Amino acid sequence: MTRPAHVVAVDLGGTTIKAARYGAHGIAEESLRIPTPTRKGPDTVVAAVVQAATALVRPDVRSVGLCAPGLIDTDAGIIRFAANLGLRDTPLAAAVADAVRLPVTLEHDVRAACLAERQLGLGADVNDLLVVVLGTGLAAGIVSGGRLIRGASGTAGEFGHIPVHANGELCACGQRGCAEAYAAASALVRRYRRTGSSADTAADITARLDTDPDAARVWAEATDALGRALVTSTVLLDHQRIVLAGGMAAAGDLLTTPVRRSLQHGLAWRTAPAVEISPLGADAGLLGAALHALTATDTTPAQAGARRDGPR
Amino acid sequence: MTRPAHVVAVDLGGTTIKAARYGAHGIAEESLRIPTPTRKGPDTVVAAVVQAATALVRPDVRSVGLCAPGLIDTDAGIIRFAANLGLRDTPLAAAVADAVRLPVTLEHDVRAACLAERQLGLGADVNDLLVVVLGTGLAAGIVSGGRLIRGASGTAGEFGHIPVHANGELCACGQRGCAEAYAAASALVRRYRRTGSSADTAADITARLDTDPDAARVWAEATDALGRALVTSTVLLDHQRIVLAGGMAAAGDLLTTPVRRSLQHGLAWRTAPAVEISPLGADAGLLGAALHALTATDTTPAQAGARRDGPR
Repeated sequence: MTRPAHVVAVDLGGTTIKAARYGAHGIAEESLRIPTPTRKGPDTVVAAVVQAATALVRPDVRSVGLCAPGLIDTDAGIIRFAANLGLRDTPLAAAVADAVRLPVTLEHDVRAACLAERQLGLGADVNDLLVVVLGTGLAAGIVSGGRLIRGASGTAGEFGHIPVHANGELCACGQRGCAEAYAAASALVRRYRRTGSSADTAADITARLDTDPDAARVWAEATDALGRALVTSTVLLDHQRIVLAGGMAAAGDLLTTPVRRSLQHGLAWRTAPAVEISPLGADAGLLGAALHALTATDTTPAQAGARRDGPR
Repeated sequence: MTRPAHVVAVDLGGTTIKAARYGAHGIAEESLRIPTPTRKGPDTVVAAVVQAATALVRPDVRSVGLCAPGLIDTDAGIIRFAANLGLRDTPLAAAVADAVRLPVTLEHDVRAACLAERQLGLGADVNDLLVVVLGTGLAAGIVSGGRLIRGASGTAGEFGHIPVHANGELCACGQRGCAEAYAAASALVRRYRRTGSSADTAADITARLDTDPDAARVWAEATDALGRALVTSTVLLDHQRIVLAGGMAAAGDLLTTPVRRSLQHGLAWRTAPAVEISPLGADAGLLGAALHALTATDTTPAQAGARRDGPR
């Protein structure tokens, strides 16, 4: 197992930019969080990522790993499209490399989380793994036969857009009945508020499951939708283990107990794969970006771009 | 491209056993079809497969390839479980090898069809391919990043059990709302008969689409269910191309036109992958079993079993 060593990682999320510098033993030596300035346009978002990376780079840092949601071109270091961030064809890795004069890698945030799960979490001994990241959105990293699945255009793992209810809730993607429209944290809060009560986070809702029938209902609908999507994913890919990660995974047994029930209910003809909570917490993407940065070499496009400005 | 040469293939289906001997240029020199004697018990089914293989073997045949539905242990040549055939832990490859004294391979019928599609059909130039075989049941072969997906227990590709309608039609698997409960040929006939009309095959129904509103309705529900399941599969695996194979694929445009519409409708946020009809007809599984037989070597378990009875 390789732990991140002397790298800076930046996780560009829809609401928050998280960054950390990891030392030789994979310990975060320093970290920061800033709100993602999505309302101020693409240039401001890129500048915020550059600022976060630059603030943490020290002389012993050998590379920087970025991760972001959306359609990510890992080889070119470009965010092809990220609706929640307002970015399109954004050369994020090159922008950071120009500032820090180091090799910079860019990976999809969920695939980064999946990488972290395989190296530091519950995926080390498993060749057929699904890592579902439950956050503002809902996406998954898929490992099949020991290999990460990327798909024809790099968009494999859009787990949140599995349709679970024909003609169901309208999703931000334009479809109806997507799993994400029930089970993502944003959907949970939106659906709960519709009952007239107020909540800011998924945790506000899970804290009221015993006392508020509306909270219990939207949570039951969320976990059922997640279970249904996992049924689908299991019949197609025959996972050995399913790991739930991201902010909502902090719900622990409140999440796994109904999800396991829903999954087994939908798999009458076979045994359901194990469903576990990731031990990596909400920073799995950040850790994965750091691990990915360890793969950076002098031949990465971002580094080539940086070298045009001279050696460091 | 390698074409099957001097091999015998046997496709053990739920209703029919198909077999053929392929010559040096992949041409079927001789073929036969017999009804699958499922009602007479497992031994009779195995004996029928042995009989079909034996009838076609000639001195120039170098190996025999079998394929069957269910949970197939390819390495051991054993059908672990096949509900429609009434088989459990059946060493089919060894039974045939004992009779024909040749190397014998066993592959899942749909993965065999997928292999044929990659070598002889529409999958040669594609690394991210889905081959859906529409027959008595509904299953798929998945190729991702150029590799066939098998899953943790060899059951990946159970496409027919993707849930498309919460609390929908009861499926033979025990779940409700599976794609197969609408879109498999058997489901189509069963649902049409419920309207009081009679039909024996899917073709009987597609022949009446213009004149019988009940036929048009069950067909529309079948193609919609198939499209919904393809949406799910696409968001998870990001296929480049989808190939429809098996008996029902003979419907051609009557199938692809509504399926393409349903698929694109459910993929509002991205372009749908191409949906094509397999050029291999209903014998794709048989062809794939023949291709798989070409990989047989003296070290296969089935051959080892045959060798116990002495060299040929």
